[in-house]
Amino acid sequence: MKKRVAVIGAGSWGTALAILLADKGYDVCLWGRRREYVEEMLETRENRDYLPGVKIPYGLQMTWDLEKSILNREYIVLVVPSHSMRQMVSQIRPFIDKNAVIISASKGLEVDTLKRMSEVIKEELHESMHKNIAAISGPSHAEEVSKGLPTTVVAAAPHKEIAESVQDLFITSKFRVYTNPDIIGVELGGALKNIIALGAGISDGLGFGDNTKAALMTRGIAEIARLGIAMGAEPLTFAGLSGIGDLIVTCTSIHSRNRRAGILIGQGKTLDEIYSNTKMVIEGVRTTKAAYKLQKEYNIEMPITSELYKVLFEAKNPLNAVKDLMERGRTHEIEEVAVQKSWHC
Amino acid sequence: MKKRVAVIGAGSWGTALAILLADKGYDVCLWGRRREYVEEMLETRENRDYLPGVKIPYGLQMTWDLEKSILNREYIVLVVPSHSMRQMVSQIRPFIDKNAVIISASKGLEVDTLKRMSEVIKEELHESMHKNIAAISGPSHAEEVSKGLPTTVVAAAPHKEIAESVQDLFITSKFRVYTNPDIIGVELGGALKNIIALGAGISDGLGFGDNTKAALMTRGIAEIARLGIAMGAEPLTFAGLSGIGDLIVTCTSIHSRNRRAGILIGQGKTLDEIYSNTKMVIEGVRTTKAAYKLQKEYNIEMPITSELYKVLFEAKNPLNAVKDLMERGRTHEIEEVAVQKSWHC
Repeated sequence: MKKRVAVIGAGSWGTALAILLADKGYDVCLWGRRREYVEEMLETRENRDYLPGVKIPYGLQMTWDLEKSILNREYIVLVVPSHSMRQMVSQIRPFIDKNAVIISASKGLEVDTLKRMSEVIKEELHESMHKNIAAISGPSHAEEVSKGLPTTVVAAAPHKEIAESVQDLFITSKFRVYTNPDIIGVELGGALKNIIALGAGISDGLGFGDNTKAALMTRGIAEIARLGIAMGAEPLTFAGLSGIGDLIVTCTSIHSRNRRAGILIGQGKTLDEIYSNTKMVIEGVRTTKAAYKLQKEYNIEMPITSELYKVLFEAKNPLNAVKDLMERGRTHEIEEVAVQKSWHC
Repeated sequence: MKKRVAVIGAGSWGTALAILLADKGYDVCLWGRRREYVEEMLETRENRDYLPGVKIPYGLQMTWDLEKSILNREYIVLVVPSHSMRQMVSQIRPFIDKNAVIISASKGLEVDTLKRMSEVIKEELHESMHKNIAAISGPSHAEEVSKGLPTTVVAAAPHKEIAESVQDLFITSKFRVYTNPDIIGVELGGALKNIIALGAGISDGLGFGDNTKAALMTRGIAEIARLGIAMGAEPLTFAGLSGIGDLIVTCTSIHSRNRRAGILIGQGKTLDEIYSNTKMVIEGVRTTKAAYKLQKEYNIEMPITSELYKVLFEAKNPLNAVKDLMERGRTHEIEEVAVQKSWHC
């Protein structure tokens, strides 16, 4: 029998995943919030605002009716903005099949609670469903997935059979899915990478080179790993697709809003000036604030995040921030991350 | 007293490091192989072929006389091509001070033996000097270091006081040096990254996108780590500056010869065609052969290296290589690298 899947959220990523699943021959229903927009998509078979130029196959159902989209589906893929995840899950709860697998494809932390998406989902669902929660993450521009360019992601769930069923659901010859039991690390990598993307943008805006950017990315993922480990994640997850892999895509892409905002900051613009000229949401700004709180809560040293916080919220000159980063106490490379190989004496 | 340093090798990296050390006020002597070229540098105070546009300070001595460059120096920095390292060390051995610290700044493996540079140095020096051997590596384009752009590297040595004395030697407010006891991992990262740079170039040449390249880089460093661990390295070193950091710089730079060669291969050129049109050395081709041998010797699975080997030496179509990589058996993300967090049952 055909797998029955609901994809909740018709942004670029939700649409790309729904098309991928429909192309596999599954019975897929894509839900979008705005009725008029869904009607337009039904008519044009295109998501013009978020995934222009990509044909939506006729086999893919689309609806603005939440109940209809969810009822009797074996897999629910949630691709809504992180700030609306809690409300969404509480809204669909009555319609979810009790054996359904719930997959978060959203990146980010809940602003007030600093919780990961799978934690938020858990809190909104009955305990009997908790083991069915998974996350999917990795270096995956939606546009490239839609064009069939080779892409790799991670399906994470503490329970192996759930992770493997998510792997089965998504895997194609152009969309390779690895499993990882460390859902904490996979979600934190995807949520926190935007801090470093913002920092990489600032480095570019200051006119620094490839050496500086590579340093920021490498040391950035190391401090994210440090926080992650304190929060229960595995160190090596941050060296994987949902960690450094996603960071590479974000920091090298010209499409990244975080990176573009960083460039402006590096060139001397303030956050207020940037916000007054654009309506764009800069996820990394919110995430920096969240990570700054978390580092204090967990008592972790995160020098890049701290300097970025000062630049964003305390008007510190970015050049001085870089200077202070370069001149802080000398350290060993790996002992901060995990128990290290001991020195010979 | 001023530190007395010899820098052996006047390519771009040797020259940049010698200038950095001279600017710190040390007594530095840079050795170059060709007398006429050194004379030209002495006259013009510029290394026009390898580091054009960078002023060589008058405080930096330069010579073509090996004995003169080495005698009575506390630090010997070796920056010669990997294939000439053994001969160089055997040549300078009689002149080296018995307490000198010997630092390899060269990347690569010896072709026939597949040994790391510090191993080669060790074999050519008396046992009493073995503990004084170190390596320095990381994401560091010489041109950017010369311009004072913020750069980070790793000083590696099994003995803490040696690693720290190398850190002291090089560190400035724009050149931050971390220490790491894992010299095996640090040297292997720098030597093997060119394989992945070549692969990333092929991906670009095939017209693939950021997703594919990020996947190649992330999974590439994972398989290099796998080999490295079998050879005695620490997993986390590959997540650091000399691993993924150096790989990021190499794969994103337009200056990388490996990447450029890869692009041509991805566009359908054969190795013979590339070599017939250029005299350039493509380090990654040699390294792929070396890693292919090592993976067999250590019985490690290295799918990207294996496919690259088939493309380079067995005329496999690159598109089929990517296809085979994407379609191989499904795997878990981190269990291949190290003992993983266990699944919940």
